Amino acid sequence: MELALRWAEIAALVAFAVSGYLEAERRGMDPIGHFALAFVAAFGGGTLRDVLIDRRPLFWIEHHEWVVAVFALSLLLPWLARDRVRPWVERVVPWPDALGLGLFAATGTTLSIDAGLPPFVAVMMGVITATFGGVIVDVLCNEVPRIFRRTELNATCAFACGWTVVGLVAIDAPRPLSIAAGAALGFGLRMLAMRRGWRLPALGPDEA
Amino acid sequence: MELALRWAEIAALVAFAVSGYLEAERRGMDPIGHFALAFVAAFGGGTLRDVLIDRRPLFWIEHHEWVVAVFALSLLLPWLARDRVRPWVERVVPWPDALGLGLFAATGTTLSIDAGLPPFVAVMMGVITATFGGVIVDVLCNEVPRIFRRTELNATCAFACGWTVVGLVAIDAPRPLSIAAGAALGFGLRMLAMRRGWRLPALGPDEA
Amino acid sequence: MELALRWAEIAALVAFAVSGYLEAERRGMDPIGHFALAFVAAFGGGTLRDVLIDRRPLFWIEHHEWVVAVFALSLLLPWLARDRVRPWVERVVPWPDALGLGLFAATGTTLSIDAGLPPFVAVMMGVITATFGGVIVDVLCNEVPRIFRRTELNATCAFACGWTVVGLVAIDAPRPLSIAAGAALGFGLRMLAMRRGWRLPALGPDEA
Repeated sequence: MELALRWAEIAALVAFAVSGYLEAERRGMDPIGHFALAFVAAFGGGTLRDVLIDRRPLFWIEHHEWVVAVFALSLLLPWLARDRVRPWVERVVPWPDALGLGLFAATGTTLSIDAGLPPFVAVMMGVITATFGGVIVDVLCNEVPRIFRRTELNATCAFACGWTVVGLVAIDAPRPLSIAAGAALGFGLRMLAMRRGWRLPALGPDEA
Repeated sequence: MELALRWAEIAALVAFAVSGYLEAERRGMDPIGHFALAFVAAFGGGTLRDVLIDRRPLFWIEHHEWVVAVFALSLLLPWLARDRVRPWVERVVPWPDALGLGLFAATGTTLSIDAGLPPFVAVMMGVITATFGGVIVDVLCNEVPRIFRRTELNATCAFACGWTVVGLVAIDAPRPLSIAAGAALGFGLRMLAMRRGWRLPALGPDEA
Repeated sequence: MELALRWAEIAALVAFAVSGYLEAERRGMDPIGHFALAFVAAFGGGTLRDVLIDRRPLFWIEHHEWVVAVFALSLLLPWLARDRVRPWVERVVPWPDALGLGLFAATGTTLSIDAGLPPFVAVMMGVITATFGGVIVDVLCNEVPRIFRRTELNATCAFACGWTVVGLVAIDAPRPLSIAAGAALGFGLRMLAMRRGWRLPALGPDEA
């Protein structure tokens, strides 16, 4: 189980980095921008969580091989993401991306519970871990963060996933099991929402 | 006095949260966005201050009932903020909002003095506590922060309020008194500035 | 050597503050905005680095005279930056600005090595120190950060400079010497890049 979780984490980090990379490409940034956005997309959420709960050293400072890997990836991708491979990349990425949403929400919540945070805040930290990399990328790209507009249940999935983990930890389920269950729920819900185009309603002035 | 301060703090946090909420509504965000902006407006300034001076646990992690309250508020507001109630909400909110400006500047400055910061930096921390929730909301909404443009003496009031607190603490006034005096000054000045439309001059290229 | 480094640091901080100030002016901000952007341009990068590696107290909290100096500068500049002086200011500033790029990359890298960070991450921290003040300024001004678009080798110079420092520290060169060498390389490369208009290629959709 733990090995499966580790592989899932790697796949998810790569997917997050690739989505940051594609964002930089869409805006015609230079290689610095590509690396920066890939990095922020992959590690931004976890970094914000760690700064908020004062957990050090940061994940990517402890495991610096990851930073080098993202750097290498951002140098390689111009070749990998060309012409023929690109449609394939864009079709495959949503899968590990949705996996990452569930997985990081689950691990972020678990970490926060273990740091002694109360349940609601722990779930929020899970949501931050899973979604704030994307928020920071959007801010850097000068856009209103997508998860605050009408995404396909992005933060909502992370929220549901976090509460699942809280519930399982409360009944003393083993950590890897509760993480896997939470991640699976988040992943399934997110894929379903994307397939069906489910969204939260906007609460705009038109409706008030 | 301390009880009055506690109630003033609650009113101010609610006012800040409501102003963040209204901002999200103006942009037609979904419920996630509403909660996120209400949360950031209420706790963003204090969180940034605590991260800068390394004060943990964060206010809203220690008092997590507040996070739940803002969450509940952001679920309730679509009903509370409708049609008939709305004009009333929009007329009432500026009062606790100005109160919060003074109060958070005063408490932020006091906290920073007690953490051993030098006066000028302590006042800056007070200003950050009072105004940076709004700055982060503006950044998330993809706007140049209002307090850097021509607001009605927003940061200026917080600045005056902070120095009042520094002065009173220097002559050994009791903490609750100096906080109340600083907050009252900030509140009065801000209400006056809004009433009269006082603004700092722009220092644009036209004038150089 | 150490004295020379200290003077170089002062010149560079002033140059960074002035560039933040000019940015605020270009957008017709009020005095609060001018101070805020000057402050962020001067200290933002170092602050982010210190928060990430958990180094306290922050530079500008320990040396609060600097905050007062930037505040005084932002009050004085409207007079200094007028009519006749302005063209001179705009011609002179790029020099200490490029110096700051090299110097802060070098000191940031050195600090991070001494804090026990692995080389790649230390160099990244150097780049963050040198460039993220500008990134935050750009975000506050509601623009896509310039260093992610096509600058004249801004982050690239900082990167080269950081690796130079890592190399020199690895062969046990004395700290001031390795900082000076790194800073000189960063400075020279940056001036050359600005003179010649060297840029990294964009990796936009047009080219994929």
